[in-house]
Amino acid sequence: MAAMAVFAASLVGSLAAASVRVAAAAEEPAEGERAPPPRTSSEVLESASPADWRPVDPQNTLYMELPSGRVIIELAPMFAPHHVANIEALAREHYFDGLAIVRSQDNYVVQWGDPDGKRPVGNAHRTLAAEFERPSRGLPFTVLPDPDTYASETGFVEGFPAARDPKFGRAWLVHCYGMVGVGRDNDVDSGSGTELYAVIGQAPRHLDRNATLVGRVIQGMNLLSTLPRGSGEMGFYDKPSERVPIKSVRVAADVPESQRTQLQELRTDTATFMAYVESRRNRHEEWFKVPAGRVDVCNVPVVVRSASGTKASR
Amino acid sequence: MAAMAVFAASLVGSLAAASVRVAAAAEEPAEGERAPPPRTSSEVLESASPADWRPVDPQNTLYMELPSGRVIIELAPMFAPHHVANIEALAREHYFDGLAIVRSQDNYVVQWGDPDGKRPVGNAHRTLAAEFERPSRGLPFTVLPDPDTYASETGFVEGFPAARDPKFGRAWLVHCYGMVGVGRDNDVDSGSGTELYAVIGQAPRHLDRNATLVGRVIQGMNLLSTLPRGSGEMGFYDKPSERVPIKSVRVAADVPESQRTQLQELRTDTATFMAYVESRRNRHEEWFKVPAGRVDVCNVPVVVRSASGTKASR
Repeated sequence: MAAMAVFAASLVGSLAAASVRVAAAAEEPAEGERAPPPRTSSEVLESASPADWRPVDPQNTLYMELPSGRVIIELAPMFAPHHVANIEALAREHYFDGLAIVRSQDNYVVQWGDPDGKRPVGNAHRTLAAEFERPSRGLPFTVLPDPDTYASETGFVEGFPAARDPKFGRAWLVHCYGMVGVGRDNDVDSGSGTELYAVIGQAPRHLDRNATLVGRVIQGMNLLSTLPRGSGEMGFYDKPSERVPIKSVRVAADVPESQRTQLQELRTDTATFMAYVESRRNRHEEWFKVPAGRVDVCNVPVVVRSASGTKASR
Repeated sequence: MAAMAVFAASLVGSLAAASVRVAAAAEEPAEGERAPPPRTSSEVLESASPADWRPVDPQNTLYMELPSGRVIIELAPMFAPHHVANIEALAREHYFDGLAIVRSQDNYVVQWGDPDGKRPVGNAHRTLAAEFERPSRGLPFTVLPDPDTYASETGFVEGFPAARDPKFGRAWLVHCYGMVGVGRDNDVDSGSGTELYAVIGQAPRHLDRNATLVGRVIQGMNLLSTLPRGSGEMGFYDKPSERVPIKSVRVAADVPESQRTQLQELRTDTATFMAYVESRRNRHEEWFKVPAGRVDVCNVPVVVRSASGTKASR
């Protein structure tokens, strides 16, 4: 058996109808209509127009520099404006420089910040009111058609996986792989972004609406996910020597342009994105024998590529 | 903020009713009944009786010895009898010794075996008929009460996460974190266990019923999940030097007893397990403000402990 062939098809998919609603794409074509031939995810992306992509905003992007390289985090001010502003203020004061990754728990989270909670926060806030959810009104919410265990509706808002409760008109970010959240104590208002975590395993959706999510890792996730797991309780590094030092955290806009990583994200409010979702719901390549016909919000990784358009980077 | 306090509550849960069905536990107590006070997952496990645990069967256990340590895989002959028998035959011929981990793709799978597919398989089979699903009849299936995106019913069979379709009377293992499956080419019957993978990220449930699952990692998962990601296509290690050598794979029963790892698993067909599930569905500790009220089958890690009963090991 050729090793390269195994799962060759698992990265790609099919496309039932490029310009219709996702929910409709799974249905039989109406009389007189002909569904276009299935396309793979790669084909959907290859045929995307420049307008299907948007540049990642350097004002809402963090670079966390580790000895192993750069982790890039896109922030979500539409969901957590106060925490995002506070984290950016902390970064601008170089608060995180010389702090460390203090925890790596298998199939759960990597966490970083000040293990002692003693470093001065300058003009930033040490605590902030929780931003677990917000009104759904005004959000460009692309709804997925499939049932979710935890929420009545899931989908995407400007690239971020989210959930929505139409009954109460509320929306919130959800804990998918790579999402970044704010550590806190028992008091809901005890966090501020001085301590952050990234999800490195199965989506811990029970944390939804219990923690303020502020963004997601869009490049360098492997630098976090491969860190040795901590042997202490809950994956904390028992010995200070095990901790991974953070060289710096900067707002991308503050970094000289020549040193920035220019990235683009696939927009999530387009027909192309709908087609991409459909290609994840039903994969018709020969390798797949039973198309799932469904997709979980955490199984639709939003595509990021270098601004030169050459290669998806995550 | 004390780092240790963050998510202290995330490992534990609550218990609404220890001796009732999981589905009923979420409902209001009937008139005249009083729900027992909520308990945490830890409390549920602490109060478990010896009969709530079962020893892991060495006849259906593999030890994969890596330079970094031992990975322990529990096999699932009730779902994939022919593949399990074949993998055990391969192990007994020392087929895997000196082969390698050849792939590590972030948020997806680690894969091992013979990258060239040339090593003789001796008395084992090079290919086998697929075992993607089986009749559900006769399986001790503990059903979870919550909706699942991909299947009409999910639950557990002798410790393994599974799904069931009552309409067609079929059952299958599902691709949760740590599950081990059989690589294959496009032909469904082209696998045999000479190439295996383990899930290291968000459950790739689109693979359900498209690949034969044969077991799950019950110890040493971190030895796989922290491997450097491959820089090649789909996470394959481009250079042979990047591959992680496999010292040996053995059936535990063939290893001298003094060298075995004695493990016990929480049984999944007991009232204690129901209580454990409920403690994962609703976590009432002070840290949690919004109990999920639901749980995904892949968010109920089955508990494994050393046979001395001292410590959960995953």
